[in-house]
Amino acid sequence: MKVKVVTRILEANDRIAEQNRKRFKDAGLFVINLMGAPGAGKTSLLERTIRELKSRVKVGVIEGDIVGTDDAERIGSLGVPVVQINTGGACHLDANMISEVLDDLPLRDLDLLIIENVGNLVCPAEFKVGEDMKMMVLSVAEGHDKPLKYPLMFRESSALALNKIDLLPYMNTDMNKVRNDSLALNPALKIFEVSCATGAGIDTWVTWLSGLR
Amino acid sequence: MKVKVVTRILEANDRIAEQNRKRFKDAGLFVINLMGAPGAGKTSLLERTIRELKSRVKVGVIEGDIVGTDDAERIGSLGVPVVQINTGGACHLDANMISEVLDDLPLRDLDLLIIENVGNLVCPAEFKVGEDMKMMVLSVAEGHDKPLKYPLMFRESSALALNKIDLLPYMNTDMNKVRNDSLALNPALKIFEVSCATGAGIDTWVTWLSGLR
Repeated sequence: MKVKVVTRILEANDRIAEQNRKRFKDAGLFVINLMGAPGAGKTSLLERTIRELKSRVKVGVIEGDIVGTDDAERIGSLGVPVVQINTGGACHLDANMISEVLDDLPLRDLDLLIIENVGNLVCPAEFKVGEDMKMMVLSVAEGHDKPLKYPLMFRESSALALNKIDLLPYMNTDMNKVRNDSLALNPALKIFEVSCATGAGIDTWVTWLSGLR
Repeated sequence: MKVKVVTRILEANDRIAEQNRKRFKDAGLFVINLMGAPGAGKTSLLERTIRELKSRVKVGVIEGDIVGTDDAERIGSLGVPVVQINTGGACHLDANMISEVLDDLPLRDLDLLIIENVGNLVCPAEFKVGEDMKMMVLSVAEGHDKPLKYPLMFRESSALALNKIDLLPYMNTDMNKVRNDSLALNPALKIFEVSCATGAGIDTWVTWLSGLR
């Protein structure tokens, strides 16, 4: 019974995601669904990425949070169009939430739309929103056991940014284990090592990102 | 319509949680629901806590994870009774999952049962499992904006362990903001600063914990 309900919810979501995808395609827009646990550094990576990209790529952002507008304010201060979604209690964005805010963004003037999902290593990976690509951020401070404990997001993502590598000297995170376990789950996963604090690795990440569209 | 369904799920959950609670009470057991984001250090704190407590308090553990038995193996190696729940896709433990494993633990021989929830800063706070007390772990590496972005867990918890304080010299986390925002949400919240890596603050935490029953 429970499974039936969940299936129906996911089917209904996927239908709306398809409508969003069509709208994005009509507008000539590449769309990224950016996921990761709370505090992985999704917003910081977004800030770094926008600073590097915005002179050559027109970026727009949708921020997803349970409550508050902190992240939208951080992104808005960079001078790019941004909309904040507050999910209330919901721990992930779904296609309908995205659909409802699309009129608030200048879709046809944008090249790239980045949707920052709610901080959660589980549920966001289950809900398509109409994106071209899912990407995830994992802080090395979260530890090397995360791929095996939260496999779906690693499977669903096309790219993984391993963030906060400036902290590696002060902890026991085994980066080889993170890499190997991630690639065992998803051999096509592109892995980047970055630090939003120091800027390390950001160039490589942004170069790859700007070649995607 | 959606709200109605959610309400029914939570009501059904709360009924089973009450049954669990009665069973715990009959067994003379104090029960803690331990929550936090992935990588906050819940299992590490549990290891430290059990090492300190087990000579004087009989501790049992239920481990909640999407998949895998890593955490149960870590805890089991300390010589305490442990059961692993794999939720499949579910991002939180619910009362029924707990109910189903209670026969696998020697409830009447235990003083304290610690239930480690799935790593998630959102949904676990919505589902009672029959616990006497909710507690949470937040890694200082997650950043100081977490209380305002994920308020429910801070409101629902009786205690907050701020973990990985050994990393504070290498980051910009504003601990006063974490404390003040947490206490604004929940003035009765007990806050502990700990490092499972160095052992700092563990004594104070364990002393408080052992006085609870």
